[in-house]
Amino acid sequence: MILSIDNTIERLTTHNAKIPFNAWLGIEVLAADAERVELRVPWRWEFGGAPGMTHGGILASLIDTAAFLMLLAAKGTGGPTVDLHIDFHRSTANGALYVSSSLLRAGGSISTVEVRINDQERRLIATGRCVFLTRSRLSRESDQCA
Amino acid sequence: MILSIDNTIERLTTHNAKIPFNAWLGIEVLAADAERVELRVPWRWEFGGAPGMTHGGILASLIDTAAFLMLLAAKGTGGPTVDLHIDFHRSTANGALYVSSSLLRAGGSISTVEVRINDQERRLIATGRCVFLTRSRLSRESDQCA
Amino acid sequence: MILSIDNTIERLTTHNAKIPFNAWLGIEVLAADAERVELRVPWRWEFGGAPGMTHGGILASLIDTAAFLMLLAAKGTGGPTVDLHIDFHRSTANGALYVSSSLLRAGGSISTVEVRINDQERRLIATGRCVFLTRSRLSRESDQCA
Amino acid sequence: MILSIDNTIERLTTHNAKIPFNAWLGIEVLAADAERVELRVPWRWEFGGAPGMTHGGILASLIDTAAFLMLLAAKGTGGPTVDLHIDFHRSTANGALYVSSSLLRAGGSISTVEVRINDQERRLIATGRCVFLTRSRLSRESDQCA
Repeated sequence: MILSIDNTIERLTTHNAKIPFNAWLGIEVLAADAERVELRVPWRWEFGGAPGMTHGGILASLIDTAAFLMLLAAKGTGGPTVDLHIDFHRSTANGALYVSSSLLRAGGSISTVEVRINDQERRLIATGRCVFLTRSRLSRESDQCA
Repeated sequence: MILSIDNTIERLTTHNAKIPFNAWLGIEVLAADAERVELRVPWRWEFGGAPGMTHGGILASLIDTAAFLMLLAAKGTGGPTVDLHIDFHRSTANGALYVSSSLLRAGGSISTVEVRINDQERRLIATGRCVFLTRSRLSRESDQCA
Repeated sequence: MILSIDNTIERLTTHNAKIPFNAWLGIEVLAADAERVELRVPWRWEFGGAPGMTHGGILASLIDTAAFLMLLAAKGTGGPTVDLHIDFHRSTANGALYVSSSLLRAGGSISTVEVRINDQERRLIATGRCVFLTRSRLSRESDQCA
Repeated sequence: MILSIDNTIERLTTHNAKIPFNAWLGIEVLAADAERVELRVPWRWEFGGAPGMTHGGILASLIDTAAFLMLLAAKGTGGPTVDLHIDFHRSTANGALYVSSSLLRAGGSISTVEVRINDQERRLIATGRCVFLTRSRLSRESDQCA
């Protein structure tokens, strides 16, 4: 249903505006439902790594952020990241990045999200996977994982 | 020998000033030799994730960057990152971060660097590992990994 | 073309018979082409971990092996594994495992393969990713990564 | 205290005898306390991968198993593995393997263990890291991660 999808986009956009680093990254939410989140991230000068290339830390940040947004879209709430893995496949010229995340598994304790980043020519730049601890469980304890 | 250590610090500091995202991260090189690189990163507002916490993408970016600086200190040259893995151990209050990287293995084709991030109270926040393809080999080919 | 697919199955089956640990794992190649390899692995008693469950090391071994077979099917030759990552999603009752691998990226220096393991009820048990250094490049040097 | 260390060795050895795949791997526990576990694994023919080399799946299995034994030594109880990461640094000739694991962090929900494998000449062969969900938390729910 279009209305509910639009609502998720709005919810993620509101979330991004409140998280300083998400806001800095300049993420635009193109599409979002319980299975998939699609982002567009316009280039900004500070993303630069080696001359003419996007910094690996920016790609890692986008994978981390896109995975969290996926969790938010699917579960209505986030949770601490347990770990993050990124494979870098190709260097990127400066230009907008397209980030697509999908829910690989939503478990009671652990949820796993897969993310792909493509460049403007739709070539695969990086892929990653992020593991989350479900927040509802964590509220019961003090020793939190980040 | 102090002079050679200072020289490496200077070399890495010059490198950071030229890479836009490294400059934005505000990395200070505290110590550097062929085995270990120690960084201090003052807090900045844009590092914020969930309220009062450092964004996971910033931690991932620091691990990626610290690993590359380690490679630069050890080999005199960098190389494309093949993959990056981060474990998040604890959430961080806002404050300076201390990033320590060490060379796990420097091979002819592949080099691996380990990184640890501690907060101001010296608690372990995140650990990671970064795998690089040695640049000398890559100069022989066009199909590069990022 | 069926004939060429059958030929790949035969080639992988012959490879498995020559590698002692592959032979021990008892892998059956169900389907194989340059994009995807499908395996079936009958249960054997020694696969046991915690009572009634498959050992995580067996799942990791199947992911490592399936990824290598994918590389062999796609490139005609293997190469040393740089790293391996496994996410465990669900515990498995004893029973045949179904392992599906697909080529994520075949680069000049680095190739990446994704693998999924399902149980007999087709539930997702584990997913993983394996990074290889292309062997043709390695033949030129002595300092090999395993 | 020697007596308590010996007791941990005995406890892990008893555990290994009950887990079919651990028993098959032929693990000998050399030393064990709450911070570190040291194993020796004699070569067996079925460990073979490429001619004269140890199969990557065996190295992954040893890392998975050694990490679990570390958790058992440190906490008195294990827990499901969330994920496993292995970097392969060097190929191994056939011979005994030495596996050393240390507790990186023991949290309320998540514990992380680091593992290193050396060959008979004490060269670094592979390193890895294993993330566990603490079992005490899992006992409260049905949807388990493996």
